[in-house]
Amino acid sequence: MMAPGSRDVRLLRVGPASRAVAQDVVAVEEPMEVRVNGAPFAVIMRTPGADRELAAGFLLAEDVIRGSDEIGTIEYCIAQEPATGNSSPGTTGQDEGPFLRPFGSSGAFDPNTLNVTVIGEAIARLIVRLADRREVTMTSSCGLCGRKTIESLRQRVSSADGRWTVSADIVRSLPGKLRQAQNVFDTTGGLHAAGLFSLDGSLLASAEDVGRHNAVDKVVGRYLIGDGLPLDRAMLVVSGRTSFELVQKALLAGIPLLAAVSAPSSLAIELAQQAGVTLCGFLRGETFNVYAHPERIE
Amino acid sequence: MMAPGSRDVRLLRVGPASRAVAQDVVAVEEPMEVRVNGAPFAVIMRTPGADRELAAGFLLAEDVIRGSDEIGTIEYCIAQEPATGNSSPGTTGQDEGPFLRPFGSSGAFDPNTLNVTVIGEAIARLIVRLADRREVTMTSSCGLCGRKTIESLRQRVSSADGRWTVSADIVRSLPGKLRQAQNVFDTTGGLHAAGLFSLDGSLLASAEDVGRHNAVDKVVGRYLIGDGLPLDRAMLVVSGRTSFELVQKALLAGIPLLAAVSAPSSLAIELAQQAGVTLCGFLRGETFNVYAHPERIE
Repeated sequence: MMAPGSRDVRLLRVGPASRAVAQDVVAVEEPMEVRVNGAPFAVIMRTPGADRELAAGFLLAEDVIRGSDEIGTIEYCIAQEPATGNSSPGTTGQDEGPFLRPFGSSGAFDPNTLNVTVIGEAIARLIVRLADRREVTMTSSCGLCGRKTIESLRQRVSSADGRWTVSADIVRSLPGKLRQAQNVFDTTGGLHAAGLFSLDGSLLASAEDVGRHNAVDKVVGRYLIGDGLPLDRAMLVVSGRTSFELVQKALLAGIPLLAAVSAPSSLAIELAQQAGVTLCGFLRGETFNVYAHPERIE
Repeated sequence: MMAPGSRDVRLLRVGPASRAVAQDVVAVEEPMEVRVNGAPFAVIMRTPGADRELAAGFLLAEDVIRGSDEIGTIEYCIAQEPATGNSSPGTTGQDEGPFLRPFGSSGAFDPNTLNVTVIGEAIARLIVRLADRREVTMTSSCGLCGRKTIESLRQRVSSADGRWTVSADIVRSLPGKLRQAQNVFDTTGGLHAAGLFSLDGSLLASAEDVGRHNAVDKVVGRYLIGDGLPLDRAMLVVSGRTSFELVQKALLAGIPLLAAVSAPSSLAIELAQQAGVTLCGFLRGETFNVYAHPERIE
């Protein structure tokens, strides 16, 4: 049986002298909108499962609620339109429990929108949070702040151009070159790296940061400041995993190829496929995987 | 010479039959406030360096700016009070360049607050973003959203209680137990895990997610919903690195010990030291490091 947080994907596995279609399992990433007393509060990119717990823990960390006595209900909202995309209404049934009471009893609920009803002093704190948030929103540079709904996530992105190809050998060489350029990673083990490469495999820029999104923002920002966008003849390499947001950042910078040392999420693959971005993963040693648009790999 | 993004720390290295004070290097993590045309816009937890590039890349991803022609200036703000904490004004001199023009010419600037002046159509987009953000803030569950200033980051947190001790053997055994409980990680390589353990080393709850903050929110949220906070007789274990936000989340749940398989950031260590949280890192095989409050390790 398939674990609930994972999904099968088809990919192209590129070896030293071979390439073969293969099947692998990736972690599911989907946005969940958290509403508080009916008001849209946040959208969290998460792996489905334990959604009520996530919403409760998130609102604790946000200082909206401070104890269980301030939670009224936690319930999925009713889907407003026929469900589209990958999630079928009701598939997160493992979250059913005393706090899960979908509005009405017959309608299909939206497994990606939760409403939390808070009571008591939490109501005053909620109001403060909503007011605060207008002035300063703190973020780990997630790149998704300010979008109104889950649906609009995909609206801003256009397709990647760049009708070039690159040899598998060059792609294979990139993580080693990025590692050589890293000043700090090997000593601390605590930094993510991002590197921008030209099509012949030369390093154009690199950055390191505790946040992997920040490392990408730093290399893209350098070219933005220097009037170097779109980077439609460049490749982006990251030291860790690939999330939806990293594909989005590559796309906004016009970068047609994103390669990562570790695994992509399901939504990263989906966006890359839709948006024309070549997405490589598990770039280690002699082989790597291509999850989207392999036509750029020679 | 020390790399700019790293810092020396003293720690306790616990081996199978030994413990010794040692020195190691950790990645620096510090908040940077981004203001746009003078208005507080976001605070990003980042590793200092390439701050202008980070601000520019971040505002591209936020869809405030779309090209270099919409950037007027990017400048550090003048420090309003004598600098406190670890950052001395002016230490990020490597970011000086055409876009860096501190207000005035003599004052010390605040290396953790940047103001970006945007021009042209970006001004209308900025207004839309600020309005949007009141309604829905998208976040990777960073746990820091909504705080008004960098200074206030530390105000909400109180000290961890829990005057118990635990044997080094039990601490050592926790990552293996967490891994056994993980359904998905081994197949996808793309998920972070968090586990909550009792003082005798029994697993109480675990969760997996593409976001490491989410995994912690899920286990904490479970106990919050069940009226099980504070978790002052529990230990939290995470599969990845430790950031400031993870220590903050442990603290808000009342958990006095946080252990990670990988490295902590500088600010994670600082907060743990100040807040009475025992912080362990590099929990692999026979040895591990203790960065704060080793008195709980027998």
